[in-house]
Amino acid sequence: MSSIFGNIFKVSTWGESHGAGVGVVVDGCPAGLGLCEEDIQRMLDRRKPGSSAFTTQRSEADKIEILSGVFGGLTTGTPISLLVRNKDHHSSDYQNLAEQYRPGHADYCFDRKYGFRDWRGGGRSSGRETIGRVASGAIAEMLLSLFGVCFLTYVDRIGDIEISADAFDEAEINRNPLCMPDRVAADAASDYLKKLMQEGDSSGSRVVCRVSGLPAGLGEPVFGKLDALLGQAVFSIGAVKGLEIGDGFAVSSMRGSDNNDGFFMEDGEVKKLTNHSGGVLGGISDGSELILRAAFKPTPSIFREQKTVDRDGNNVTMNIAGRHDPVIGPRAAVVVESMTALVLADLLLENAVCRVSNLQKIYD
Amino acid sequence: MSSIFGNIFKVSTWGESHGAGVGVVVDGCPAGLGLCEEDIQRMLDRRKPGSSAFTTQRSEADKIEILSGVFGGLTTGTPISLLVRNKDHHSSDYQNLAEQYRPGHADYCFDRKYGFRDWRGGGRSSGRETIGRVASGAIAEMLLSLFGVCFLTYVDRIGDIEISADAFDEAEINRNPLCMPDRVAADAASDYLKKLMQEGDSSGSRVVCRVSGLPAGLGEPVFGKLDALLGQAVFSIGAVKGLEIGDGFAVSSMRGSDNNDGFFMEDGEVKKLTNHSGGVLGGISDGSELILRAAFKPTPSIFREQKTVDRDGNNVTMNIAGRHDPVIGPRAAVVVESMTALVLADLLLENAVCRVSNLQKIYD
Amino acid sequence: MSSIFGNIFKVSTWGESHGAGVGVVVDGCPAGLGLCEEDIQRMLDRRKPGSSAFTTQRSEADKIEILSGVFGGLTTGTPISLLVRNKDHHSSDYQNLAEQYRPGHADYCFDRKYGFRDWRGGGRSSGRETIGRVASGAIAEMLLSLFGVCFLTYVDRIGDIEISADAFDEAEINRNPLCMPDRVAADAASDYLKKLMQEGDSSGSRVVCRVSGLPAGLGEPVFGKLDALLGQAVFSIGAVKGLEIGDGFAVSSMRGSDNNDGFFMEDGEVKKLTNHSGGVLGGISDGSELILRAAFKPTPSIFREQKTVDRDGNNVTMNIAGRHDPVIGPRAAVVVESMTALVLADLLLENAVCRVSNLQKIYD
Amino acid sequence: MSSIFGNIFKVSTWGESHGAGVGVVVDGCPAGLGLCEEDIQRMLDRRKPGSSAFTTQRSEADKIEILSGVFGGLTTGTPISLLVRNKDHHSSDYQNLAEQYRPGHADYCFDRKYGFRDWRGGGRSSGRETIGRVASGAIAEMLLSLFGVCFLTYVDRIGDIEISADAFDEAEINRNPLCMPDRVAADAASDYLKKLMQEGDSSGSRVVCRVSGLPAGLGEPVFGKLDALLGQAVFSIGAVKGLEIGDGFAVSSMRGSDNNDGFFMEDGEVKKLTNHSGGVLGGISDGSELILRAAFKPTPSIFREQKTVDRDGNNVTMNIAGRHDPVIGPRAAVVVESMTALVLADLLLENAVCRVSNLQKIYD
Repeated sequence: MSSIFGNIFKVSTWGESHGAGVGVVVDGCPAGLGLCEEDIQRMLDRRKPGSSAFTTQRSEADKIEILSGVFGGLTTGTPISLLVRNKDHHSSDYQNLAEQYRPGHADYCFDRKYGFRDWRGGGRSSGRETIGRVASGAIAEMLLSLFGVCFLTYVDRIGDIEISADAFDEAEINRNPLCMPDRVAADAASDYLKKLMQEGDSSGSRVVCRVSGLPAGLGEPVFGKLDALLGQAVFSIGAVKGLEIGDGFAVSSMRGSDNNDGFFMEDGEVKKLTNHSGGVLGGISDGSELILRAAFKPTPSIFREQKTVDRDGNNVTMNIAGRHDPVIGPRAAVVVESMTALVLADLLLENAVCRVSNLQKIYD
Repeated sequence: MSSIFGNIFKVSTWGESHGAGVGVVVDGCPAGLGLCEEDIQRMLDRRKPGSSAFTTQRSEADKIEILSGVFGGLTTGTPISLLVRNKDHHSSDYQNLAEQYRPGHADYCFDRKYGFRDWRGGGRSSGRETIGRVASGAIAEMLLSLFGVCFLTYVDRIGDIEISADAFDEAEINRNPLCMPDRVAADAASDYLKKLMQEGDSSGSRVVCRVSGLPAGLGEPVFGKLDALLGQAVFSIGAVKGLEIGDGFAVSSMRGSDNNDGFFMEDGEVKKLTNHSGGVLGGISDGSELILRAAFKPTPSIFREQKTVDRDGNNVTMNIAGRHDPVIGPRAAVVVESMTALVLADLLLENAVCRVSNLQKIYD
Repeated sequence: MSSIFGNIFKVSTWGESHGAGVGVVVDGCPAGLGLCEEDIQRMLDRRKPGSSAFTTQRSEADKIEILSGVFGGLTTGTPISLLVRNKDHHSSDYQNLAEQYRPGHADYCFDRKYGFRDWRGGGRSSGRETIGRVASGAIAEMLLSLFGVCFLTYVDRIGDIEISADAFDEAEINRNPLCMPDRVAADAASDYLKKLMQEGDSSGSRVVCRVSGLPAGLGEPVFGKLDALLGQAVFSIGAVKGLEIGDGFAVSSMRGSDNNDGFFMEDGEVKKLTNHSGGVLGGISDGSELILRAAFKPTPSIFREQKTVDRDGNNVTMNIAGRHDPVIGPRAAVVVESMTALVLADLLLENAVCRVSNLQKIYD
Repeated sequence: MSSIFGNIFKVSTWGESHGAGVGVVVDGCPAGLGLCEEDIQRMLDRRKPGSSAFTTQRSEADKIEILSGVFGGLTTGTPISLLVRNKDHHSSDYQNLAEQYRPGHADYCFDRKYGFRDWRGGGRSSGRETIGRVASGAIAEMLLSLFGVCFLTYVDRIGDIEISADAFDEAEINRNPLCMPDRVAADAASDYLKKLMQEGDSSGSRVVCRVSGLPAGLGEPVFGKLDALLGQAVFSIGAVKGLEIGDGFAVSSMRGSDNNDGFFMEDGEVKKLTNHSGGVLGGISDGSELILRAAFKPTPSIFREQKTVDRDGNNVTMNIAGRHDPVIGPRAAVVVESMTALVLADLLLENAVCRVSNLQKIYD
């Protein structure tokens, strides 16, 4: 449904940009996981506004509070409720938006669907909605890390500036505000964004998420495929217009003899000669690195005059005020990672009960 | 879960390639929809094997039987059970596959997940699994057509051969076995595939699905976004490695001022100046054409010697027998369309109950 | 939803009394469970019509067919589709029912809900709908039996005739057609039912289901309580009007000091001094015997003139033809047991993944 | 799942007795429903502690806060998050309970399920968990009231004291703290409870909920039956051991000719001559009054020495401190009503989309 995600590890998010706060309830997290507010705060801080020239200057501490489900530093198996209060509202910036539909935004669609909308700061369709995803994703990552699962997430393209495979430097990701693992590309992208900002414009971008340490066997054969759930998870993030797993769209011009990944034995383990599949075969993890790439459209809130209509059906030109990032990918990277973690945690649980022999390990 | 899809309009598929049959139960289809077996058969025939040189020569009538849920030519509101018996098994073609893992297939993953697998013809991960999707998708299309929703689905690329926008001819789609709306491209692709078949190889491809007549308002703001559900739906189809909505990956190099679709009034209706969004804004249909594009990898079953391993952990070279299409897109087009229809039917129902004023139309 | 039950071990039933057949798809059964058609047939035969003077004389073999999900005598982890064809239709017996509403039946409600109904033999609300429940319940019992879970189900009351605790004889249950564990009571009930049949009347009844060997810990603390899911499961069986767990309604006049079950240690195990709770505390199994009791109303199809209305809104008197049991409990006992088994199998799976330490047993 | 209830109108509750607070997220409430905090507070106050001699003296304002989903006094269609902070903790009262299992409580079961538990005040299995149910139930009632649905809920038995049908006085329900619609019975019950309290004991009770104004047609034919969902809803409330719909257990000794409710026409409407069914036939509302009755066990927290065991496996005798009601029914009445409202709101939405003709009213 609308704001509930997952089959066993379920999250239920809520909250609007300029309401009292945003949050999430996590239902189905196993008991006995070590968890404190700092574990979640660390991940939330990766999406916090105001942290660089390229993020909205809205000033929010985004301080997380655990309201339930943790006792003595451990999850209890009951629902974990997480809350972040909203603080720095500038609803007045949005007053004209109550009557006019911003191009590239969901304003018009909300009105057609519900008859009206909470127009303050985009309401439910604001980027602040993702706080609940990241907070719950942090818990999913904590759980996955117990089993050796590791995430590597970065921006690999902004406008026409792409990272170079040769220059790839993992340590660089946290050193620049654009989350690019290539200093030269990050600098070029930084210059490009500054120029766009002067012009009141914005840029598209691309995010890569890679996951290592996954056991083979995660994912269900048909609608619960690992890549299918990632499809829902990643496209549920605002502004995503494309998703690739492994070689992605390049496969459409490949031959089978090039695309198939051969298997071989190494140290008693089944390995693959290549990883065109991006770690998923037939919807099930194959034990190699999971690789996905998501395309984000340019921030639709630009500071230029735009043609649109108002609620009364008049053609108008509008100007947008407010505080907006010139590019979405750098702050959305942690959201992509969080959604991926939610999918994987859910499938880890599902997979655990898909064999009678697993049940015997537990009940015998 | 694994084989159930949808929130209100739910489908539950079942069946293996070489078992007794394949089928689906549709739960939640509204009462009063005119439905007979021919309505479903027509759509199933679009994916039937043996219909051209480019499809497996397995001979299956794929005759659908409605077992329940229809009375006097109308759906009754109770579950509709649909069955197709399997007939033309050649399980012996697959005997060596019981012990060896085919590259590009899920054999290894199934063994790691479940401990063993039904290896006959790929079992549950065979393309025959999609019969249940298409049969139920046909019902979803029947329902949508009552409200003016129309589908246009075709292959726009095979290998390096792409259709030309100038040569686009809708009528051509059903005239060539590759479902390409461009005679010249279809002929070139046909030659290309014949050459690949001689070499025992296969090709990747790309499928486009466009939907017109959608009301604005379908889709839920967060995890139930129209594009999110399409993400799950399309990536749940075997061999899909990429999905784009609207401008897709191209947005990552675009500027906001180019990507935003301005609104304007025409005949009292809100229209968009462009359709970069592909018909979805903030996860909700915006009333313009829905456009999605899916990338299919080359058929992994190729007739060349491949390196792999067996169940006992030995490196081996294997040769695949059996009957396999050299390209997936042309037969998968109707599957993409069916999955899209299932998503839209479900959201049409969800949207109907999202406003108190809608309930008043029904209960007052 | 309507015809889908369970969270992990999910069943989706379908079928009408006089349609092509009835069946069920089981999604989420773990791989590696030994299963053949005889395992299911044995349980189905307990509800088969025509087996005594007190069951409808409709002649149905109710022969089960496994269509998918089993390979080499083991479940594969993919959906198990089960089919029973209908054979002995006497739809003409019901012709007058197309226009008149039978008292005590759902005819009127179906018309109000859906606008029309499949009136042949009660359509979807016929007792034959329970075949899918029993067939899938048989699989659930097979799974549970691996972990030492045993069922004991019987009729403890028909009209005013109740079994005597002193005369309780488990072996007697299968020796009389009324499933009563007390020969004297069974004989008295038999005489009573014969008298009612002569008068064209029917009797209410009560079914008890007791489950031993359950591990402590099954059930979730709030909406997924063991007794809550049993509540849905048992009340979903047609004609059930009451359900008790443990001491049931008697608790409303008890004192806490009488009702509380004290704990004590025995052979290193926690035991209870009494079992007023019926095996459930706070919605979670407590390791003692699970005890539930369901009240069934008298068969509403009686052979007496009854006052009712027709579809056109006229007051009419009607007479019912067809073939109907004079009491529901004896044939419904196996349905109560099946629904209980479905709940327990689902909770057994859920419970297995509720602790991090359980996951470590599987993934480490 | 554990703490999520409903199919379309979904609620997700969270919170422990002595944690930061308790709350609920309501997902799927239609847009356009008038709602303010007072609407919810009014219903919550019916279960507030400290309001009479017969309720725990814990002092909690139980002040509700709406955190999201409401704008300009109307629901927006997005999730409604509701929060009540906990204030008056006396965790020290429970310190000995960390090590000993209270008879009649879930302490032992939680430890067996999760390995440990939040023992402060019963943690998640405390009665405070029901605040989320009542807060969301209040919203469901607001929605239902738009369509003329009315609730009447009361206690009809405490110990051996039952209300008299002749003395039934609806206005009396809110005048006495025991919610009994019969002054004489309420006075007798009051005396009985005072005596029990002196003895450190508690009493069982029974709650009746009656709903008028329901349209015929609510409920789905098989697992989503109105009575089945009520079965889950009511048995999910702690301490419920029995549930009856309509005549309940009395039907097991009735004849069909007595139990069937004949139909007749009155003012162009279909009516029933009697209402033994309690408003449900075949799982679907029949347009007459819905009647259900729930049995509550005596409060298990009694102030007498009890035999039990500790976590280390020793037999011990224990004494319970803390603040506890001597009877559960009077404060649970509003919980029964809330759960009933949640079921009905969900089914009202489901029923709205079960016919093509309903969709046509909305989309045409």
